[in-house]
Amino acid sequence: ESQLPGFATHQVGVAGAVVDESNGKVLVVQDRNKTTNAWKFPGGLSDPGENIGATAVREVFEETGVRSEFRSLLSVRQQHNHPGAFGMSDMYMICRLRPLTYDINFCTRECLRCEWLDLAELTRTSDTTPITARIARLLLHGLERGFGEIDLSMEEIPAIYSGRFYQLYHRQLPSLVTHI
Amino acid sequence: ESQLPGFATHQVGVAGAVVDESNGKVLVVQDRNKTTNAWKFPGGLSDPGENIGATAVREVFEETGVRSEFRSLLSVRQQHNHPGAFGMSDMYMICRLRPLTYDINFCTRECLRCEWLDLAELTRTSDTTPITARIARLLLHGLERGFGEIDLSMEEIPAIYSGRFYQLYHRQLPSLVTHI
Repeated sequence: ESQLPGFATHQVGVAGAVVDESNGKVLVVQDRNKTTNAWKFPGGLSDPGENIGATAVREVFEETGVRSEFRSLLSVRQQHNHPGAFGMSDMYMICRLRPLTYDINFCTRECLRCEWLDLAELTRTSDTTPITARIARLLLHGLERGFGEIDLSMEEIPAIYSGRFYQLYHRQLPSLVTHI
Repeated sequence: ESQLPGFATHQVGVAGAVVDESNGKVLVVQDRNKTTNAWKFPGGLSDPGENIGATAVREVFEETGVRSEFRSLLSVRQQHNHPGAFGMSDMYMICRLRPLTYDINFCTRECLRCEWLDLAELTRTSDTTPITARIARLLLHGLERGFGEIDLSMEEIPAIYSGRFYQLYHRQLPSLVTHI
C-alpha cells in the first residue's frame, strides 16, 4: 500500500434489496423529486465509521419502516464526477437483506411509493433503473438456484497490526472453512 | 439515496493478484519498513477519478515492473479508524489480473522482495497476512475449478441521468446476457 497517508476520495452509498423468500417479492421505493418514477432499492449514504451492512439496514428502515438483517454483498459500483457529488467519487454497494418485519410505513419526505414487488416483475418492468433491473435478475437467479450463486459473504477478521476488526467480503467456497 | 450531498469518508486502496495460469504462480511482494516480512499482493491507493482496475494495474507495474490487465474483482474489505488513516475509513479491493509481461524489476524503495510464488505455497506459508492467505485459497480454487467461481466481473454501464459511464461489479451468471 502507499507510503503516503492519502485522503478520502469516495463517499459510500449502500442500498438494501430486502427479499421475501416465501413469496419472491422484494421491497422497492420510488424517490420523490426525480423526473422519472423508477422503482429502486431503498438506500443512502454511509455515516462515518458505519459498516456497509449497517447502512443498508438503517436506510431501509428509515425509508420504508421495514426491519431487516444483512445477508450478503451483491454488487459494487464505482462512479466518478457524477452530478451532485462535487468532485468526489462514489462507491455504491447493493446488499441482500432478509426481512424481519413486513409492514410498510414509508417516509413520505423521501419516497413517493413503496411496495413489495414481485422480483420477476421487477426484471421486466421499464419503470426501473438499469442497475435495479440487473440486480433483480441476479436475485431471481439466486431465488431459483440458491443465493450462494450470487452472494459475497462477509466475515469479521482481526487486523494484524491494530487488533481491530475489519469486514471482508468475497465468494464463499465450499472448501473455505470459516477459520483462516 | 440521501438528499444531502454528503462528503468523502473513504480512501480506496487496491491490490492486484497477478496470476500466471500456465504455472500456478502469483506475483507477491514484501514491503519495506514492516516488522514482519509478510508476502502480500502489490497495491496502493487510488488516485482521484481512477477506476479500481486501473489502480491495480498501475500499482503492480510501479512496484514490480510487471505489466498486466484487469480480469475481475475478488474481494472487498472495509476498515474503520485504522492506524495511518487519520479517521478516514478504508475500502480495500483485491483484483485478479492477468500478466502481460513476466520479468520482475521491483521498486527497492517500496519493496524488500518480489517473486512469482507458487499459489499453493502461498496458501500454506506463515509468512503472509491473513487476507493474502485467504485470497490465495480463493485463487487456487479458481485455478482448479475456473475463475468464474470466484470472480466479480466488471461492466461499464451508462449512467441514466448524466450519460457518463460507471463500472458495475457482480457475479456473472450464465443467464445474464451482456446487454441490459
